[in-house]
Amino acid sequence: MKAEIIAIGSELLTPFRQDTNSLYLSDHLERLGIRVIRKTIVGDDKDDLKAAFAEALARAELVIGIGGLGPTEDDRTRDAVAELLKRKLVRHDEVVKMMEERFRARGKKMPEVNLRQALVPEGADWLPNANGTAPGLWLATPEGKIVLLLPGPPPELKPMFEEYALARLRAHAPKHVFATKVLKVTGLAESEVEQRIAPIYRPYTNPETTLLASPGQIEIHLRGTGGDTGDALRRVEELAAKIEDALGDAVFSRGLETLEQVVGLYLMMRGATLAVAESCTGGLLGERLTSVPGSSKYFLGGVVCYSDRLKQKMLGVPETVLKRKGAVSAETVEALAKNIRRRTGAVLGVSITGIAGPEGGTPDKPVGTVYVALADAHRVKTEKHRFLGDRERIRWQATQAALDLVRRKLMK
Amino acid sequence: MKAEIIAIGSELLTPFRQDTNSLYLSDHLERLGIRVIRKTIVGDDKDDLKAAFAEALARAELVIGIGGLGPTEDDRTRDAVAELLKRKLVRHDEVVKMMEERFRARGKKMPEVNLRQALVPEGADWLPNANGTAPGLWLATPEGKIVLLLPGPPPELKPMFEEYALARLRAHAPKHVFATKVLKVTGLAESEVEQRIAPIYRPYTNPETTLLASPGQIEIHLRGTGGDTGDALRRVEELAAKIEDALGDAVFSRGLETLEQVVGLYLMMRGATLAVAESCTGGLLGERLTSVPGSSKYFLGGVVCYSDRLKQKMLGVPETVLKRKGAVSAETVEALAKNIRRRTGAVLGVSITGIAGPEGGTPDKPVGTVYVALADAHRVKTEKHRFLGDRERIRWQATQAALDLVRRKLMK
Repeated sequence: MKAEIIAIGSELLTPFRQDTNSLYLSDHLERLGIRVIRKTIVGDDKDDLKAAFAEALARAELVIGIGGLGPTEDDRTRDAVAELLKRKLVRHDEVVKMMEERFRARGKKMPEVNLRQALVPEGADWLPNANGTAPGLWLATPEGKIVLLLPGPPPELKPMFEEYALARLRAHAPKHVFATKVLKVTGLAESEVEQRIAPIYRPYTNPETTLLASPGQIEIHLRGTGGDTGDALRRVEELAAKIEDALGDAVFSRGLETLEQVVGLYLMMRGATLAVAESCTGGLLGERLTSVPGSSKYFLGGVVCYSDRLKQKMLGVPETVLKRKGAVSAETVEALAKNIRRRTGAVLGVSITGIAGPEGGTPDKPVGTVYVALADAHRVKTEKHRFLGDRERIRWQATQAALDLVRRKLMK
Repeated sequence: MKAEIIAIGSELLTPFRQDTNSLYLSDHLERLGIRVIRKTIVGDDKDDLKAAFAEALARAELVIGIGGLGPTEDDRTRDAVAELLKRKLVRHDEVVKMMEERFRARGKKMPEVNLRQALVPEGADWLPNANGTAPGLWLATPEGKIVLLLPGPPPELKPMFEEYALARLRAHAPKHVFATKVLKVTGLAESEVEQRIAPIYRPYTNPETTLLASPGQIEIHLRGTGGDTGDALRRVEELAAKIEDALGDAVFSRGLETLEQVVGLYLMMRGATLAVAESCTGGLLGERLTSVPGSSKYFLGGVVCYSDRLKQKMLGVPETVLKRKGAVSAETVEALAKNIRRRTGAVLGVSITGIAGPEGGTPDKPVGTVYVALADAHRVKTEKHRFLGDRERIRWQATQAALDLVRRKLMK
């Protein structure tokens, strides 16, 4: 089954707004075995809209339109689709009632203009909107194709899709079953990963394997098909196990967890606490660790020692070390890890110092030079890295390396 | 002049990758007065590609294709466009030479497979690629339409577009001139901004005004047209001045600067230094401040006092305050700002404490309750906020409020 997604709204053609709903929908469709063959982004013009839907219906069995269901003159999706499929628009009293109740609950009277949202093309089903006024619409064409119209705001689209559209789509989806698995890797270059695992996955056409590389992280996506769930899952798990064997502990996640979530899980399992001392990352490491709800159970906090003065004053890096070896050195990063651990009373102390650029590089220590260290009660482990990319990428990779130090320590 | 953008690559139809190049291109096209009327995302299938280009050429005068110019079998943009426009592909020796030099510079021999990238449709111009091997292509159709093909990776696409395509496009762009201006506002709700400025901008059709709201920030985009640059600019500046009058110091930027950049500029102008004490934001405030290159001139660092223990131990918040008033209180945030200033020797100390959720809220202090404070040598200014949204949004808004405290202090 082939699908197309049409994202509607003139603002999506500007440099300032981007459709993200289609990523969410593609994820669900992929798992149903429905292939997205094209995405189209169009403005609010009714003729453009009609043309886009007509073209998509000529190519795909399922066309999902997102947005343009609001109450204003700019919202033309309903009209365009009704005209294209030659259906009259009929006001549904249940929709009016639902909308009036929503307004009443907020202590307001429904404006006249919202009545447009109660217009439903003849023969179509409407889908309730738990977080807004615009109902969704589900239409079947005489050729057996499906048009699904959803509201644009993600907090409205997502619950509506999951509660009212997903099960219906499943009934139309292909009968073979899909299973997917994602392995996430850090600490290895893309070429290294490819070299190790290409001989393993290349012979397989089912599951399909895709590598997605970003700075400091490589994702391996497996997607298998089978006669039933067990069959599809078995295929995926079999290949995943072989790939994991080849990559060893470079694989940090076998699902959707981020590196900071994995580190958090390990810290909780071990009942350990963590504190950080960050220089060039300026707080990014702490920010990532605390982006995980409940991180206060294991993360104590730390010091952002951006200036050399704070490295000395708050974390006791000796002036002689800073002078002779520099703020970006093995000696400094080691002192930072040891001392943040000691001063906070954490079980583990992790530290980062480096040159994120664009200024500050030297022939000896070019931009991208980063030291990370991890201290426990007995020893300090230190690593030197040379990251490529701009300031943002270097800082991101520095935090990946620091988190991975903690992960590898706790795995043992 | 109307344009369409076609982003090419099967990975762009998965849930994992998104086209972002089109935002960059839309920005340039908009400034040239070229209107983007549709964006299409297609996979690597040659027939799909041909159809997409044919349809776009029927609607627009300029069609920009992004991606699919690499050396592998999956890269079919060149073939598809040549077939569609009935042009032979001819190998260009200059392109071969350029590619060979690129490989030689990296100490490598060019693989045979890359020769495909030297194929240029008859009558087309090729555009050099300073950061990769795939040249861009510029074709004019007999109907006077333009097809521009650019490589997918942003570090290749952007310099190529700016060096070799922009000037040529300008020669084709409409003769009237555009001017744009962005005002950025923080500290006011969208409805408040709208209420104050709608009566001002509504009567104008030129410039056009668009409001874009995100958590903790509202952007007002003005776009004016005129017979020459001076004329267009005058229209935009006239309306911008009226809007600024109505919003006063809630406007923090009259260009593209972020709030952290504006705060950095003020700190440099005043020769002042800043240190931070962050609780619920976990490092995000420091991360934002240090995302600005050169921030070491004014940002000393700070303490991420995520646990109450560190609030006591590293920032001297009295135990009695934590017990009686709580970690999320005016008393705590005030002590944090005072003490981070004192302990780091910074001119200004800023602090944040709050409940980012999803857990930890109480009837008294619901999720989203955030205190921010700013201390100088003489006094502490404290604010209490109640932010809406999820953990990420609450944390973001908390840093906006803290940065804005600093900005307003330094403006005086």
